[in-house]
Amino acid sequence: MVAQTPRLSHLLETSIYVADLDRAEAFYRRVLGLERFLRDDRMSALGLPGNAVLLLFAKGGSVEPTPTDGGGDIPPHDGGGSVHLCLAIPLGELARWEAHFEAQAVPVVSRITWPRGGTSLYIRDPDDSLLELATPGLWPSW
Amino acid sequence: MVAQTPRLSHLLETSIYVADLDRAEAFYRRVLGLERFLRDDRMSALGLPGNAVLLLFAKGGSVEPTPTDGGGDIPPHDGGGSVHLCLAIPLGELARWEAHFEAQAVPVVSRITWPRGGTSLYIRDPDDSLLELATPGLWPSW
Repeated sequence: MVAQTPRLSHLLETSIYVADLDRAEAFYRRVLGLERFLRDDRMSALGLPGNAVLLLFAKGGSVEPTPTDGGGDIPPHDGGGSVHLCLAIPLGELARWEAHFEAQAVPVVSRITWPRGGTSLYIRDPDDSLLELATPGLWPSW
Repeated sequence: MVAQTPRLSHLLETSIYVADLDRAEAFYRRVLGLERFLRDDRMSALGLPGNAVLLLFAKGGSVEPTPTDGGGDIPPHDGGGSVHLCLAIPLGELARWEAHFEAQAVPVVSRITWPRGGTSLYIRDPDDSLLELATPGLWPSW
């Protein structure tokens, strides 16, 4: 008898490790319109639609355990590079996003139409990470 | 007059850059029960509940543009480190996840109860990335 894996709800947090926290936070707030939930010297937490949170960490700032009020430490973590992240957008917002990126002087570095019908726009953040905005029609689930 | 930022739907894809794609994929399928959507030499795409996708990339395997069938290239990206990722779980599944990790011989490296009432379990993946499973009660939105 194989035990079933317990259930997951959804992807809650993902992290980007950045060289300059102020610069990265300013970009995500201005260009994507994200709401700040928390900010300190170590990190910025930005709310995303769909009950998720984008975590921006100062690179090298979380390599020691971080104590918490509730007892227990957040274990060390760190990362780097120009990573890839994708945000879903409604099909009806695609043209508005293209106009918005133009108005914000953020170049769209690639545009792809997928076999399932979705369209992706790619932009770069200040740390050269690759952000994709995608309409429905990429994956079996979406 | 300030133009409103266009709408986002949700966090669709996040990426981890791994040393051994087979090893990482086997871990995420076995321990988290994720479904494989796509697999090639460069990447593994694993479906997450909530219409999201976890992308595992072979480290250094996406540093050149990737051509697509739809016309347009996926621009280069890469990353590394022991990064942080969090998956939401229902409160009613917390005890089952703890039992599951024990049965799978996956050590829970930290356990935190947050001021808003949520509980987080932390484990390490084969690349030493820090995975958190969290019940509701971490953020203003969840």
